[in-house]
Amino acid sequence: MSYTYSLSPLLAPLLANPEVLDLFSARADVSAMLSFELELAKAQEKHGEIPKGVAARTRALIDNTPLDQAMLDVGIARDGLAVPGLVTALKSKADPDDAAFLHKEATSQDVIDTSFMMRAKTAMPLVAADLLAAQKRLADLKQAYGGRKLMARTRMQAALPMTVANRIDAWANNLDDAAQLIAALSYPLQLGGPVGTYANDKVKQSLAEALGLANAKHCWHTNRTPVLAIGNACATLTGAVGKIGFDIALMAQNERAEITLSGSGTSSAMAHKQNPVKAEVLTALARYNASLISGLHNAAIHEQERSGAAWTLEWLVLPQMLCAAAGSARLLGQLLASVERLGT
Amino acid sequence: MSYTYSLSPLLAPLLANPEVLDLFSARADVSAMLSFELELAKAQEKHGEIPKGVAARTRALIDNTPLDQAMLDVGIARDGLAVPGLVTALKSKADPDDAAFLHKEATSQDVIDTSFMMRAKTAMPLVAADLLAAQKRLADLKQAYGGRKLMARTRMQAALPMTVANRIDAWANNLDDAAQLIAALSYPLQLGGPVGTYANDKVKQSLAEALGLANAKHCWHTNRTPVLAIGNACATLTGAVGKIGFDIALMAQNERAEITLSGSGTSSAMAHKQNPVKAEVLTALARYNASLISGLHNAAIHEQERSGAAWTLEWLVLPQMLCAAAGSARLLGQLLASVERLGT
Amino acid sequence: MSYTYSLSPLLAPLLANPEVLDLFSARADVSAMLSFELELAKAQEKHGEIPKGVAARTRALIDNTPLDQAMLDVGIARDGLAVPGLVTALKSKADPDDAAFLHKEATSQDVIDTSFMMRAKTAMPLVAADLLAAQKRLADLKQAYGGRKLMARTRMQAALPMTVANRIDAWANNLDDAAQLIAALSYPLQLGGPVGTYANDKVKQSLAEALGLANAKHCWHTNRTPVLAIGNACATLTGAVGKIGFDIALMAQNERAEITLSGSGTSSAMAHKQNPVKAEVLTALARYNASLISGLHNAAIHEQERSGAAWTLEWLVLPQMLCAAAGSARLLGQLLASVERLGT
Amino acid sequence: MSYTYSLSPLLAPLLANPEVLDLFSARADVSAMLSFELELAKAQEKHGEIPKGVAARTRALIDNTPLDQAMLDVGIARDGLAVPGLVTALKSKADPDDAAFLHKEATSQDVIDTSFMMRAKTAMPLVAADLLAAQKRLADLKQAYGGRKLMARTRMQAALPMTVANRIDAWANNLDDAAQLIAALSYPLQLGGPVGTYANDKVKQSLAEALGLANAKHCWHTNRTPVLAIGNACATLTGAVGKIGFDIALMAQNERAEITLSGSGTSSAMAHKQNPVKAEVLTALARYNASLISGLHNAAIHEQERSGAAWTLEWLVLPQMLCAAAGSARLLGQLLASVERLGT
Repeated sequence: MSYTYSLSPLLAPLLANPEVLDLFSARADVSAMLSFELELAKAQEKHGEIPKGVAARTRALIDNTPLDQAMLDVGIARDGLAVPGLVTALKSKADPDDAAFLHKEATSQDVIDTSFMMRAKTAMPLVAADLLAAQKRLADLKQAYGGRKLMARTRMQAALPMTVANRIDAWANNLDDAAQLIAALSYPLQLGGPVGTYANDKVKQSLAEALGLANAKHCWHTNRTPVLAIGNACATLTGAVGKIGFDIALMAQNERAEITLSGSGTSSAMAHKQNPVKAEVLTALARYNASLISGLHNAAIHEQERSGAAWTLEWLVLPQMLCAAAGSARLLGQLLASVERLGT
Repeated sequence: MSYTYSLSPLLAPLLANPEVLDLFSARADVSAMLSFELELAKAQEKHGEIPKGVAARTRALIDNTPLDQAMLDVGIARDGLAVPGLVTALKSKADPDDAAFLHKEATSQDVIDTSFMMRAKTAMPLVAADLLAAQKRLADLKQAYGGRKLMARTRMQAALPMTVANRIDAWANNLDDAAQLIAALSYPLQLGGPVGTYANDKVKQSLAEALGLANAKHCWHTNRTPVLAIGNACATLTGAVGKIGFDIALMAQNERAEITLSGSGTSSAMAHKQNPVKAEVLTALARYNASLISGLHNAAIHEQERSGAAWTLEWLVLPQMLCAAAGSARLLGQLLASVERLGT
Repeated sequence: MSYTYSLSPLLAPLLANPEVLDLFSARADVSAMLSFELELAKAQEKHGEIPKGVAARTRALIDNTPLDQAMLDVGIARDGLAVPGLVTALKSKADPDDAAFLHKEATSQDVIDTSFMMRAKTAMPLVAADLLAAQKRLADLKQAYGGRKLMARTRMQAALPMTVANRIDAWANNLDDAAQLIAALSYPLQLGGPVGTYANDKVKQSLAEALGLANAKHCWHTNRTPVLAIGNACATLTGAVGKIGFDIALMAQNERAEITLSGSGTSSAMAHKQNPVKAEVLTALARYNASLISGLHNAAIHEQERSGAAWTLEWLVLPQMLCAAAGSARLLGQLLASVERLGT
Repeated sequence: MSYTYSLSPLLAPLLANPEVLDLFSARADVSAMLSFELELAKAQEKHGEIPKGVAARTRALIDNTPLDQAMLDVGIARDGLAVPGLVTALKSKADPDDAAFLHKEATSQDVIDTSFMMRAKTAMPLVAADLLAAQKRLADLKQAYGGRKLMARTRMQAALPMTVANRIDAWANNLDDAAQLIAALSYPLQLGGPVGTYANDKVKQSLAEALGLANAKHCWHTNRTPVLAIGNACATLTGAVGKIGFDIALMAQNERAEITLSGSGTSSAMAHKQNPVKAEVLTALARYNASLISGLHNAAIHEQERSGAAWTLEWLVLPQMLCAAAGSARLLGQLLASVERLGT
């Protein structure tokens, strides 16, 4: 699970959080997969499942095995994922006595799901940090402009006068909720083995600790609740931020002029225009995740012990949702930083 | 928020939970709206916001004012919702001195959101009860057939032998997660007033208690997190159940015959067939909610203090999602009750 | 395929086209199903597939067999659809010699798909007529106000002055496209038999003619292109109309006042407000269909010769999409009729 | 509109068509944009809108202006798209007398929409060619195995015996429909100017001819019907192919063994397995597009003369849909090429 829309040089400068983007690169994915294999060997060695010394040699093996993309490509096209080819490559370079102890009792989905969770666990706090920075900026804006008048609008019509603080509070409440959803997320290790029945909880516990993940009480090969929770947090966040973007685009309308933004977008045809580009992009990201979450729920319907169809669909939507959330939180900070005035 | 797909006599017998369906009827909606108005008057009277005696007269007024559907229709077509017409009707029958104290400081969205939450708070435990019954049935099936052999299947291929208990455990874990999501839901009162700035927390607290709802710490007119949480729980549930349905349809294939179902569907053309109809419908409901949740996240992007566009969209999808979840949990129970054998 | 959201007395007055709604009632569905059975018998009799006289007796049988909803309910809950129970009921009342000739070589999907197409073929021209009326109203508005000034807006900002006619033209072009998509739709007969291999093209031709449908060149049990085309037309229409609604809601903002609407919505809390309710609802219907079309494409993935899961999903979304399109076109006419001024 | 999911080295080997992928790279996008600017100058020169000689100098300018990605990045982040920065860069290097004649009367959306259509017009025939090859392979398989027996399956149950030819025919009919939708697509030039009122049809005609596009009869800045038609064709295609994938995954189940596939996927844990990976991926791509098309219809709701929010959303989903369709058609060919036996 590694690609994302933000890879395009024509969109990434606008809507990507580069650190999060990098976490979902193929390179970071493979790196996390190799960490899984190494830490699995260490945990199994610790609990006597494989002979002493295998883990140290596995570390050396990983450090010294250059990955051959052409070889990976063949495997991916054949197997639908990189793991079998990767494991075969490692085994072929390993001490013959060790080969049987690599990736022992693990399956591809263990590697890929765990790799995703390792990176999600790093990424989501980065997103939360951007949200927190946006909250601080909102507090500053409230301090500076909160007492100013703002016409409340319901059903697109002027309703009653209120203050800038009232609207900022509504924005902040939405961001708080998204931050709480992120804070409540769990990032479980996946270790179910070929058909989801892996049973050595000591190995699981050690491996989870080594990778900084939660030790799920059961295999979640076909239980995508942890994944849906991440998707729900991401889509709730982009929706909360998209509401702010929509509001700011409306406030920036010339006749209303309830906000001043610095550094707004220029037009290729109309030199006088100041376009609230970031505000618009925030609503685009909100509707993008609103569309993708439909795919994520369809991807949760795994048949039997493992579904290649459902799982591939998940790969196509989940990293994108997370990167859209990261881009949204980052862009919100930039938009709020550009606010030079609120209210009248 | 009252209609649902299940109203059709051609589908309701298959996929509706009649009690939940009834909770989302127009009749139940209006009844909850009137409860809101009455309890609001009582709370405001208690805290000295309106004169003593108004609440008692409001109760009599509500009891004695027959609702005129034709009048409601005119209001709905004009206002986009029933509340203004309803309030006008009450006021026109009220003691002239009381009219100003009805619906005081409240807005239509307070009434409609609260009415939804009152009914959702009644409905979701019914859904949870059906889930619990399904869990018990799963435990019984595990007791009876758990030790039997079942071939594990990954990527649609025979993988390794396991037991019926292994698969039942995976099903049960998914249902547990859905049940936990339901148990964690909050059903907040909405009382924000015309532009979301209603500030008398004593009235809110009393009203919330009277209606059995949580007293939200802030107005959620444009903060749809509580609604998204319900949608997420409903879609996670239908997905979890849809996975069971998909599995059972696969297990019931003639060559595999890993399950026996009693009372399966008949065919209009082929008398020998036994169709796993309920299992199929469970995956249909899963994909239905997976589609609707996209609308729900789009509906969460409310502009300014209240969005008629976003809110109407929410009405179109939210009760359907909840009724689909209720139908799914109910139908799962019927499907599991019809299982006469699992495994070989 | 018969229910629709518009059944709720709390929403139908706002967003339903009553004629189209009625076409997708259960009553109309069963009536079309019975027409299919009768005309099938007539076509088969004509081409010597069943004995002379059966069709006439079938007509009498249908006319004189009161439908027992309780009996239908049992069948629907068991079979997932009404057809097997309906056919069994007819056969039980038929002359014993005739029973074998009823529903001969047909399958449930033939009946249900054909019933949908019969009603869609009646409904879509009603929608097109509403579109045409809206186009005429637009032409009148252009005549009356086309020469007035209107500030063009790009990216929510004032761009360059243009005329009201420019914007009306853009609206009209969108409606034209939707009308063309509707005009190009085909409504094919379904007659594939139990596994899609029905081969008597003479019977198909006669039956198609009798029912006013196209004679598809092949069975479309698992080929949902005709259905996707209808969904695409409906969603394109609601999107085109939703754009007009969005524009009008923006134009009606107090500071811009680029439009005057009569009879706008009232507020339960703010007597001074004039809410552009119909305009908002049009964008809600657009996003509703945008959400449902995802379900429709998922429903197009039928496995093997017939998929109960995919088909049930189609029933849950397709009539709703069509009714939303019908409501959208109708409501657009009402909104445009209420326009009292455009431009400045 | 240039990036696509397939850029990831961990997925592209599986599901990308490299030629189509390359068409939607940033490099190809910018190249098409520059072609637009050059051909616009030539068309305007031809019809006397700009002085003779400008076009030739523009060609030299484009050939000799290395694009500075860092400069583009700044512009993209500020303007939401590359065009203003690109045009500014060209003008800054141009003969001062020529600068005013570059990009004359055009707007960013003209450039970007046209660039997309130029590349879609190249891409879709590549997709159609893969479909045609798949059709030929189906014809060969029908020739070889069409007479063999295959049990028809309805509602996942054995229905009646039929032949392999029957199922192949159903597959082929679906592919035919997708091919017809592609063949009927139109790829219009966009040239509306800043607010969609560009009126020199001679320039439009010449420019459309030079770029190999249709000359739309009206500006389609806010009329996304041509884009929705492409999305509909792509999603119908992936659905049609996904149905074949689903069928093949079911046929390949061990107990049914109705198909033999060569070179199937290997498992990292179970050496004996042969996974129908390509078949599974085809259904994933179908559900992926089914999810994205919801975003595309939401993106069709453009407010006023141009919507940055709607347009950015379109960029996020449309190239992905097209690349998914291209990958699906390509992968189908590979899957069908691997079929070594059908039926029994």
